[in-house]
Amino acid sequence: MAVMRLGYVHARVTDLSDARSHYVDTLGLYPVQEEPGRLLLKGWDEWDHHSVVLDEGGVGLGRLGYKVEDPSDLDGFEKRAQQFGCRVERMSKGENPEVSDGIRIFTPSEHVLELYHDMTLVGTEVGTVNPEVFPRHLVGVGVPNIDHALITAEDVNLMDRFFAEVLDFYTTERVATSLDDDAEYIGTWMSAGQKVHDIAVIKGPQGKLHHFAFELGDWADVLHAGDLFAMDDVSVDVGPTHHGITRGKTIYFFDPSGNRNEVFAGGYRSYPDRPCVTWTPDQLAKGIFYVGRELNERFTSVLT
Amino acid sequence: MAVMRLGYVHARVTDLSDARSHYVDTLGLYPVQEEPGRLLLKGWDEWDHHSVVLDEGGVGLGRLGYKVEDPSDLDGFEKRAQQFGCRVERMSKGENPEVSDGIRIFTPSEHVLELYHDMTLVGTEVGTVNPEVFPRHLVGVGVPNIDHALITAEDVNLMDRFFAEVLDFYTTERVATSLDDDAEYIGTWMSAGQKVHDIAVIKGPQGKLHHFAFELGDWADVLHAGDLFAMDDVSVDVGPTHHGITRGKTIYFFDPSGNRNEVFAGGYRSYPDRPCVTWTPDQLAKGIFYVGRELNERFTSVLT
Amino acid sequence: MAVMRLGYVHARVTDLSDARSHYVDTLGLYPVQEEPGRLLLKGWDEWDHHSVVLDEGGVGLGRLGYKVEDPSDLDGFEKRAQQFGCRVERMSKGENPEVSDGIRIFTPSEHVLELYHDMTLVGTEVGTVNPEVFPRHLVGVGVPNIDHALITAEDVNLMDRFFAEVLDFYTTERVATSLDDDAEYIGTWMSAGQKVHDIAVIKGPQGKLHHFAFELGDWADVLHAGDLFAMDDVSVDVGPTHHGITRGKTIYFFDPSGNRNEVFAGGYRSYPDRPCVTWTPDQLAKGIFYVGRELNERFTSVLT
Amino acid sequence: MAVMRLGYVHARVTDLSDARSHYVDTLGLYPVQEEPGRLLLKGWDEWDHHSVVLDEGGVGLGRLGYKVEDPSDLDGFEKRAQQFGCRVERMSKGENPEVSDGIRIFTPSEHVLELYHDMTLVGTEVGTVNPEVFPRHLVGVGVPNIDHALITAEDVNLMDRFFAEVLDFYTTERVATSLDDDAEYIGTWMSAGQKVHDIAVIKGPQGKLHHFAFELGDWADVLHAGDLFAMDDVSVDVGPTHHGITRGKTIYFFDPSGNRNEVFAGGYRSYPDRPCVTWTPDQLAKGIFYVGRELNERFTSVLT
Repeated sequence: MAVMRLGYVHARVTDLSDARSHYVDTLGLYPVQEEPGRLLLKGWDEWDHHSVVLDEGGVGLGRLGYKVEDPSDLDGFEKRAQQFGCRVERMSKGENPEVSDGIRIFTPSEHVLELYHDMTLVGTEVGTVNPEVFPRHLVGVGVPNIDHALITAEDVNLMDRFFAEVLDFYTTERVATSLDDDAEYIGTWMSAGQKVHDIAVIKGPQGKLHHFAFELGDWADVLHAGDLFAMDDVSVDVGPTHHGITRGKTIYFFDPSGNRNEVFAGGYRSYPDRPCVTWTPDQLAKGIFYVGRELNERFTSVLT
Repeated sequence: MAVMRLGYVHARVTDLSDARSHYVDTLGLYPVQEEPGRLLLKGWDEWDHHSVVLDEGGVGLGRLGYKVEDPSDLDGFEKRAQQFGCRVERMSKGENPEVSDGIRIFTPSEHVLELYHDMTLVGTEVGTVNPEVFPRHLVGVGVPNIDHALITAEDVNLMDRFFAEVLDFYTTERVATSLDDDAEYIGTWMSAGQKVHDIAVIKGPQGKLHHFAFELGDWADVLHAGDLFAMDDVSVDVGPTHHGITRGKTIYFFDPSGNRNEVFAGGYRSYPDRPCVTWTPDQLAKGIFYVGRELNERFTSVLT
Repeated sequence: MAVMRLGYVHARVTDLSDARSHYVDTLGLYPVQEEPGRLLLKGWDEWDHHSVVLDEGGVGLGRLGYKVEDPSDLDGFEKRAQQFGCRVERMSKGENPEVSDGIRIFTPSEHVLELYHDMTLVGTEVGTVNPEVFPRHLVGVGVPNIDHALITAEDVNLMDRFFAEVLDFYTTERVATSLDDDAEYIGTWMSAGQKVHDIAVIKGPQGKLHHFAFELGDWADVLHAGDLFAMDDVSVDVGPTHHGITRGKTIYFFDPSGNRNEVFAGGYRSYPDRPCVTWTPDQLAKGIFYVGRELNERFTSVLT
Repeated sequence: MAVMRLGYVHARVTDLSDARSHYVDTLGLYPVQEEPGRLLLKGWDEWDHHSVVLDEGGVGLGRLGYKVEDPSDLDGFEKRAQQFGCRVERMSKGENPEVSDGIRIFTPSEHVLELYHDMTLVGTEVGTVNPEVFPRHLVGVGVPNIDHALITAEDVNLMDRFFAEVLDFYTTERVATSLDDDAEYIGTWMSAGQKVHDIAVIKGPQGKLHHFAFELGDWADVLHAGDLFAMDDVSVDVGPTHHGITRGKTIYFFDPSGNRNEVFAGGYRSYPDRPCVTWTPDQLAKGIFYVGRELNERFTSVLT
């Protein structure tokens, strides 16, 4: 019984054509399905049908889909979520296009989390026989896959408990008011497997999205992305820089609707037995942006 | 019930003082314990007591230790290994310094595999409170941790089955004589979690080591390592180059006793549901060394 | 008759011991000579005696020394500077330690520029016989050499003419109020040879220093520097990022006295026949910081 | 009176269509002019009309064109070449398409060297007003410009003298039989300005080409090029690796006709007063390929 990874992000965008230009032409996601008001996308190194669903109308996060290892895992997670006090719904196969049946959890932070066990397999863009190391003709940044999301919640301690107790995530890093056991968490970074984070939660309003992230290979790819953002007039929030927390290399930027995206490279490999890291509030800026050790107002206040 | 990772490698070296110079001064491992004829080492980003044990006398692999998630996992793995037809021994706490009790499996390939659930926790060199992204005064290459091992076996298909059926590893990539189900495997790359490989097995004599590997951050670190190898007169086998198989960036080199090491950076994150890649024998050289697409005699024949 | 390069920078620092910690321990310059109130430094890949002179007392730029190819060049440059209307002094051998005789030009921008033809040769830290590609035991950032300086002047057009007409520099890039011939320059980047700039001048008060820069190998080195700045509590102004102007990769930071330094990597190779680039004021922020396209107040106002 | 740089390389190729695929589709040079049996190309960051001319028929080097600073330089170089004992011809404007008048020197090594002072200016692919840092839609490797050539000669000392005495090049590095003044040179690396080499000559048959090189930005670009070589079936000779001599990062590869090319990144900036480096024959392999310190037979024997 295990959650494997963040499998899909549903985001709302004010204009689908502008969003297409951003996610397809600049980021290089592959459009896999289009219908009026909706665009489904995948990265070149993803094998499942899609990882991003853009819905026209409004802005912000629709829901996050996490893939579990086995169909039989759903019952257990459903039970635990209910015991934790969450409302849970069953979802049917096809309710999300190309996605199996699953469950929908309404989290204590007022986000919608879907768990599913299967999605139509379409294969990566390099195939399974003598594959090239990347597609010969990548578009733009050429992001290979989505990586994680960062959401806000009024009670971060509660969300840390939720992901740990309900979904077996473990905490890799934390910002806490103190090193004591009863400290209040300002942020928590949590892993479902060996990623340095599959989800992160920081203190803020309920139900909001800070950003969702795409993985890149390394620091050189991060600058290449940044250069393309300049060429394509993508609004950049912060970066390129280095995180203290997670050690990832990063640029934060906005899609044309104002949803924050991140390109994220590196970060260490984590394991459940790795000791959890704690950052104290006075070192928060260094934890977030290691090199410059400054937070800008926009980064801490703009949410969708 | 899960294997987490390769936790330690025991290697034999002809001269411990030469080996110390290689593993400590050049690679930058931290010596954590020394006794006559034996040296225990760890990388700066490892939190368990040690990951490399060097024993003076001879050359080659002593044994590989894999850490499991829970003490209770041992019984299950023991049973499965026995059912697979392997000889299995119980090992006691302290039989390996600072290592818990566990089991010792004599694999069909005549290697010794130890499973254990605990090792004395010493913490990484950057600590758990507001940690720096790496230690301020790294030595030499400054390898953060071990990564994987590649061993040889007469029957690779059998070893693929062994790791899959006994230890729940899954195959990420394979070199096979054909794409058919009954193909003979020339090599198999297998993951216990999300690493692109925790173990690899290629066709060759029983009980031998091709190499064990240290992880590096990225392609820039690989060249930096190579430059230090030149300065320190480390014998380099191949690289820097790019693997087709695993997509890792790599240099192969030898310790002073002739054991092959690798520095390995990158490689994609794998999951059990990622489609397995197959390489055909005509593309083997490209699979191993993507850029040059040539194998040298030494790389395919020198084993310890 | 040619200026070769920026050979030395004299900077004033409020506290020599703090400055030593910054320039030696963090940046990795080699102290080559110390006397009360003064410290002379060189980078590992510089062969002349020193490139940075720190004088205790105050803050800001003392003078810039440019090395010319031939002793006989001095007469010509002296004549031209006088014709341009500058006060020029002869300086004697030894007036600057280890430096030959030369001339001292008081520029229209009220900076002091020294031209000299020789400095005591001490050799690089890797020597001239079978040299390693860098010293085996670099300290901190390990800057190989100084690169350029950026100064401010009330009349940038005049300074552009000064460097062109007196010293045979040519302009590689400019920020100008328009593309017309009579445009007012807001900044000018000028080369004495093939560097993308040996000097830059931006509009501002007379006689001030914006920054002087050290060269690094590439973008990976820039982040490594930034990480060390975080560890050593170096105050960072902006970066890491990419310049549009010059295409250099950069971090701006301050020494403990508040003098701005830069680490600078890349930038194209220029030639006198390369067409000069012009940036228009509306694209200034993109020209300076290509990825983020934002200027902070500090960057444009803090001078020493 | 100064040579600025290698401005063009004329190479013979057995099949122009195959060559086009290599130089245009893989390397990303821009075709600027085509006529039956001939193709003219330029890199995206070159402003003169072309830098590579491919002539169908045979294989090997046609001639090397070096651009001088001023038309009046030609007379002086002509005189010096004649005094050195070389045959020199005047060439007329248009004899080479889009190239000014100049002189043609038949070197002691039986190569043809052309000096010219002007070529039709076409501008770089990013223009001169608010330019992007590279073209938004680069093709393949996207080489920005040519860099240098390495030729063979029976008498390297003589060629070192030729370039120094006739063309004012200076030697940055040398492989010599000893450190004595009367040593025989096995190779010489020479600069006309601040490049670490504008020409190199190694001992071998008269009139032959070892390789000509394209510049890349950094080590990340070198691997990216190597990956594309694998995808496009470009025959790779050696690399990616690091040179000891010049410190450049490199891959050697062949065009479809068998002419060796190089992608070259980095290398230090040189100046006439930088002390010349000498490599001794026992360290030759380390000088050429720093990391692996091995020369393959092909690298030392295949010439065109």
